Amino acid sequence: MAGERAAPLLKDELDIVIPTIRNLDFLEMWRPFFEQYHLIIVQDGDPSKTIKVPEGFDYELYNRNDINRILGPKASCISFKDSACRCFGYMVSKKKYIYTIDDDCFVAKNPSGEDINALEQHIKNLLSPSTPHFFNTLYDPYREGADFVRGYPFSLREGVPTAVSHGLWLNIPDYDAPTQLVKPRERNTRYVDAVLTIPKGTIFPMCGMNLAFNRDLIGPAMYFGLMGDGQPIGRYDDMWAGWCTKVICDHLNLGVKTGLPYIWHSKASNPFVNLKKEYKGIYWQEEIIPFFQSVTLPKECSTVQQCYIELAKLVKAKLSSIDPYFTKLADAMVTWIEAWDELNPSGDNSAKLPNGDAK
Amino acid sequence: MAGERAAPLLKDELDIVIPTIRNLDFLEMWRPFFEQYHLIIVQDGDPSKTIKVPEGFDYELYNRNDINRILGPKASCISFKDSACRCFGYMVSKKKYIYTIDDDCFVAKNPSGEDINALEQHIKNLLSPSTPHFFNTLYDPYREGADFVRGYPFSLREGVPTAVSHGLWLNIPDYDAPTQLVKPRERNTRYVDAVLTIPKGTIFPMCGMNLAFNRDLIGPAMYFGLMGDGQPIGRYDDMWAGWCTKVICDHLNLGVKTGLPYIWHSKASNPFVNLKKEYKGIYWQEEIIPFFQSVTLPKECSTVQQCYIELAKLVKAKLSSIDPYFTKLADAMVTWIEAWDELNPSGDNSAKLPNGDAK
Repeated sequence: MAGERAAPLLKDELDIVIPTIRNLDFLEMWRPFFEQYHLIIVQDGDPSKTIKVPEGFDYELYNRNDINRILGPKASCISFKDSACRCFGYMVSKKKYIYTIDDDCFVAKNPSGEDINALEQHIKNLLSPSTPHFFNTLYDPYREGADFVRGYPFSLREGVPTAVSHGLWLNIPDYDAPTQLVKPRERNTRYVDAVLTIPKGTIFPMCGMNLAFNRDLIGPAMYFGLMGDGQPIGRYDDMWAGWCTKVICDHLNLGVKTGLPYIWHSKASNPFVNLKKEYKGIYWQEEIIPFFQSVTLPKECSTVQQCYIELAKLVKAKLSSIDPYFTKLADAMVTWIEAWDELNPSGDNSAKLPNGDAK
Repeated sequence: MAGERAAPLLKDELDIVIPTIRNLDFLEMWRPFFEQYHLIIVQDGDPSKTIKVPEGFDYELYNRNDINRILGPKASCISFKDSACRCFGYMVSKKKYIYTIDDDCFVAKNPSGEDINALEQHIKNLLSPSTPHFFNTLYDPYREGADFVRGYPFSLREGVPTAVSHGLWLNIPDYDAPTQLVKPRERNTRYVDAVLTIPKGTIFPMCGMNLAFNRDLIGPAMYFGLMGDGQPIGRYDDMWAGWCTKVICDHLNLGVKTGLPYIWHSKASNPFVNLKKEYKGIYWQEEIIPFFQSVTLPKECSTVQQCYIELAKLVKAKLSSIDPYFTKLADAMVTWIEAWDELNPSGDNSAKLPNGDAK
């Protein structure tokens, strides 16, 4: 925005994670914004295929063979033939921040016609606190030109550390298959100039298309589940990560922001294919969401790993009656944490919470 | 917004309530939007003063003598020398909807430079459902061009009836005295094109400057408390109403929306005077807000009146230790309901909830 201060670049502290099955031509458009960052490309599908990356980008690329080699039997927790595989990139990163973006997302324009530097806005979101304990009617009080409104308790104005920044999409909105089928021509043209904290106790549908997070604070909760090849559902990978992450953020007194920045989502995926992937999730979520809305983690859980392992136990105990899939998923959640800890030996990750006071 | 459908006018179903101590010249600017509605003017301060209303407006006006005559001893619950007196207007109205606006609020312009019909947007907000049980990342799913995003449970897409529409302010933001003193030149220039439901369980700072509500659904909770003459605080009238209203809306499964429409708030009130009015509230709210965040109403309370009487009891029991003022306020809350019921005999008000299922 005109007049707003630039955010620090965090060049050496942020990795961009991109799951893909194709050549990454879309990076050309992002060059001015991404070229200075390190990319972690997670190649999905046939590992013998070569993915072309435009010249000048600094990257590492992992295909299925790499994942199997690095994780051994624990590779079973990483989805195949589904963009859920992206979470492998979170695990192998050694940086403090992650930005993940889909390869059909392009640079959007703000209402003044200027290119939006999505990453810069995510960094602003992550570097300023969140306010999950009370609602501010002028949205993010830490943005320039805004503040806490009358009636906002002064004791809550320090906020809490922000763990997640959830960005939105212009053009093709993130709809489920039934809505895609009913509204094939709907486009999102509304630029809402807001960032806000999702209140404590409120679960939300987290989309993985344009997402940033503080890996030190919440990384081990960003598991995208078991989707795709051999699994009964798809397109619930980011939802799963969002439900788990929000519950753990609430428990550890961390914040989740949503709103700006927008990216330009170029192309709707096939609604018929999506329906096939989603239909079980569509009725399962009617039970899963009440579970996440009511779940409470024991006070003793003070690291993300401890919370996540506890959540895996609760998933197994409470959701397995829906379908045997949830038993498998709960086991994969534990495997994920084991793999995470193997690649990120103690001291490298969320054990060091800024305040450590779980509540 | 271009392309959006017009809202019904609700000409015979809505009253505009304006508290004032001065001639209502500000109505000239609102003429195209307000002239077809009935106004209820609540004159504060010296009742011998004559308030001029521009020609052509249909109105009734109540001064302190009228309030005393109509309510008798129960007039003690209506504040004097404070805009909290506006709630008397809610009580004498016989309409389904109320819009209340301060007399220093003018017509704002949207980013295209067009005058904003604030009342029309409030009506849109009130006539479409709210979604307090799950967060929608594209904001109000009932607006044109928006919908529920992927991952939103289908069982929750009917939403719940909207009881309150809380509008915002361009130019002078609604800041407390300390923030006014620290940021004397801050102006709100950010037009956020969003309406959103405040999630269930989340309390918010409700400002009375630009506020609409469904009187049938929530009227008796819209009590603006004891402020001004003879009282130890001011500028917490709308906050009090907001805390009580939100807790009762959550209990009765009703929705509260915030965001659009904007009005143009022309002039900051004096921060030194405000500080004197606010300073007790500023530390009291540190205890009051946790009270409202944790309060639960008994399942048996199924009307707004029942909820409000119960809340009055809890206020007396839990907040009187802060200051004897809260004992007096709790008593006034009961008086308010008695006066409300006297002016609105059974059947005229919130007893008829659309679904009646308190939860």
